[in-house]
Amino acid sequence: MHRQARNKAGLASDAQAGFVRSLDARILHHLSHLSPAPARLVEAARDAMGSGKRLRPYLLHLVAGDDADGCAVLDMAVALEMVHTASLIVDDLPSMDNATLRRGRPTTHARFGEATAILTAIGLLNQAISIANGLPGLADGQRGALVAILSGVMGWQGLVAGQELDLNGFSDADQTDGALDRITRINALKTGALLCAAVEAGAILGGRADEERSLLRRFGEDLGQAFQIADDLADMLSDSAATGKDCRQDIGKETYLAVFGADEALRRCRALLAAADDALLGAGLDPGPFRHMIDAIFQPMLDRVPQARPASAAR
Amino acid sequence: MHRQARNKAGLASDAQAGFVRSLDARILHHLSHLSPAPARLVEAARDAMGSGKRLRPYLLHLVAGDDADGCAVLDMAVALEMVHTASLIVDDLPSMDNATLRRGRPTTHARFGEATAILTAIGLLNQAISIANGLPGLADGQRGALVAILSGVMGWQGLVAGQELDLNGFSDADQTDGALDRITRINALKTGALLCAAVEAGAILGGRADEERSLLRRFGEDLGQAFQIADDLADMLSDSAATGKDCRQDIGKETYLAVFGADEALRRCRALLAAADDALLGAGLDPGPFRHMIDAIFQPMLDRVPQARPASAAR
Repeated sequence: MHRQARNKAGLASDAQAGFVRSLDARILHHLSHLSPAPARLVEAARDAMGSGKRLRPYLLHLVAGDDADGCAVLDMAVALEMVHTASLIVDDLPSMDNATLRRGRPTTHARFGEATAILTAIGLLNQAISIANGLPGLADGQRGALVAILSGVMGWQGLVAGQELDLNGFSDADQTDGALDRITRINALKTGALLCAAVEAGAILGGRADEERSLLRRFGEDLGQAFQIADDLADMLSDSAATGKDCRQDIGKETYLAVFGADEALRRCRALLAAADDALLGAGLDPGPFRHMIDAIFQPMLDRVPQARPASAAR
Repeated sequence: MHRQARNKAGLASDAQAGFVRSLDARILHHLSHLSPAPARLVEAARDAMGSGKRLRPYLLHLVAGDDADGCAVLDMAVALEMVHTASLIVDDLPSMDNATLRRGRPTTHARFGEATAILTAIGLLNQAISIANGLPGLADGQRGALVAILSGVMGWQGLVAGQELDLNGFSDADQTDGALDRITRINALKTGALLCAAVEAGAILGGRADEERSLLRRFGEDLGQAFQIADDLADMLSDSAATGKDCRQDIGKETYLAVFGADEALRRCRALLAAADDALLGAGLDPGPFRHMIDAIFQPMLDRVPQARPASAAR
C-alpha cells in the first residue's frame, strides 16, 4: 500500500472511531434519561446497547455529510441503533432463533429473562420513535419523514415481516416466484431495510436531492443483500469464538449459500458490493470513507471464507 | 327509571354502538392495507383486533367532541386500539402472564405461536405510530404531540414499565414508598397510561384548553385506578366463562384487593369513580355519555362482586 493510501485509510479509521465515540456517549446520555423506568429494564437496555459495529449510525453520518446538523445526525443515529438492537433482541428470543450469544456476550433473554428482553426491545423501539419525533430545529416535514422511516423499518413491511417469513415461511397468500425471489425478499426485509433506513435518514438530514436519494437507496439495498450473503458464509464456515454469536443457526434455512453454493454466493456478494459502489459514485458521494467502512466490515467476515478476500477484489 | 332518563340512556347506547361500528370498519380498512405483509401476520392482527370493548377509542371520541375532525378522531382511535391490543398480546405471552384466553377466545400466541404473536404486537405498535404520524390536515405540532402520546404510553414510562414491575417487582433502585405506592404506580402504568393517552389525544384533537386537559388527565388517572381494582375484584370472584379470560391470574400478586381486602377495594373503586366524575364536571364536559359508558363497563365487572353495584352508587 502506498504511503498516501495508507494515510487516507488511517484518517478514515480515525474519523470512524471518533464518530463511534461520540455515538457511544450519546447512547449513554439517552439511556440515562430512561429513569424513572424500572432499573432492570434500564440495565438490560444498557447491556444490549453496550457494543456493536455501529454500521448503520456511521452510514447515516456519512450520507448526511458535513453540512448536516451534527446533533440531529447523532440523535437520529442513536434512534437507528436502538431499532437495530431491538430487532436483534427479538431475533435472538427462544421462540425465534433461540440464540444464547451475540457480539460475544450472553443475549438479552439469556441474561435478563425472556419477559424483560421482550419489554426492553419494545421500550427501545418506542424511545427511538420518541427521539426522532422530538428532534429540534428541523424543517416542517423532516421530523415526520424520520418518524415514518423508523416505524416503517420495524413494521409489517420491514424487520417484523422478514422475521415472520424467515421463521414460518411463505404461505400460499404470500405470492413468491421461486427460491431466489424468496431469499432476496427476506434479506431485503431483514437486513436491507435497516441499511436503507440509515441511508435515507442521512439523505433527509443532509438535504440530498431526489435522484441522489434513489441511488443511495439502491446502494443500501445492494449492501444489505451482500451483507446477508457474507454473514451466511461466515456463519457456515466459522465458529462462535470468531463471530461472537451462535453459529450454524441457518442449517435447513433457504439462504443464497444453501441454494446456490459457496462459490456462487461469493461471486454474488462481490457483484453486489461492486453494484453498491457504482450507485454510490453515481450519487456523487466521496466513496473513500464508505469503502473503508465496507472493507472493515466485510473483510473479517470473508477472511473466514477460504476462497478469497472479495471486498477489495470487487473494485 | 323515568322515561326521559331511559331515552337518554338509549340515545347514549345508540351513539356508542354507532361509533364502534365506524371504528370496526376503519380498523378493517387499516388492517387490509397491511398487504404485502406476510399473510399469517395479517391474519393474527385481524384476529387480535377483532373484538374488544373499544373503551379507549370511545373515550377519545367523547373527549374530542363534535367539533373535532371526525376522520382524524377515528384514525387516532384505531391507532390507540392497536397499541392496546399489542399490549394485551404481550401481557398474555407465555413468558409473562401465560394466558390462554382473552375476550373469550384463544390468545394470539395460543392460536398463532409465540413468535408470530410477538411480531404481530410489534407490527401493531409501529402501524399505530405510522397512522398518527400520517394524519392529514392537522395543525403544526398536533401530529407530533399525538405520536409522542403513543410512543410514550407504550414505552419505558408506560405499559412496558408497568409490565416489568408487575412481573419482576421493584428493585432497590426503583424507589418505593410501601405497598400502596407500588400498587398505584403499577396500575397507573399498566391501566391508567392508556386511558390518559385516549383522553389526551381527544383533548388535542378537540382543541381543549390546558386547564381542561389537566382535569381530563386526572379523570383518566382515576378511571384507570378504579378500572384496575374492579378488574382485580372480577378476576378474584368469577370464572373464565363470565370474564372471557383466564381467571385468578393475580394470586400472589400485590394488588389493592390482596393487600386491603374486598370491602376496602370496593370502597376505593367507588371513591375513584366519584373523583373521576368530579374531574369530568370540572372540565366542563357533558358527563352523560361518559357516565353511560363507565356504567356499562363497571356494572358487569362489579355485578360479580356480591356486595354492591358501585358505579351508580358512586353518584
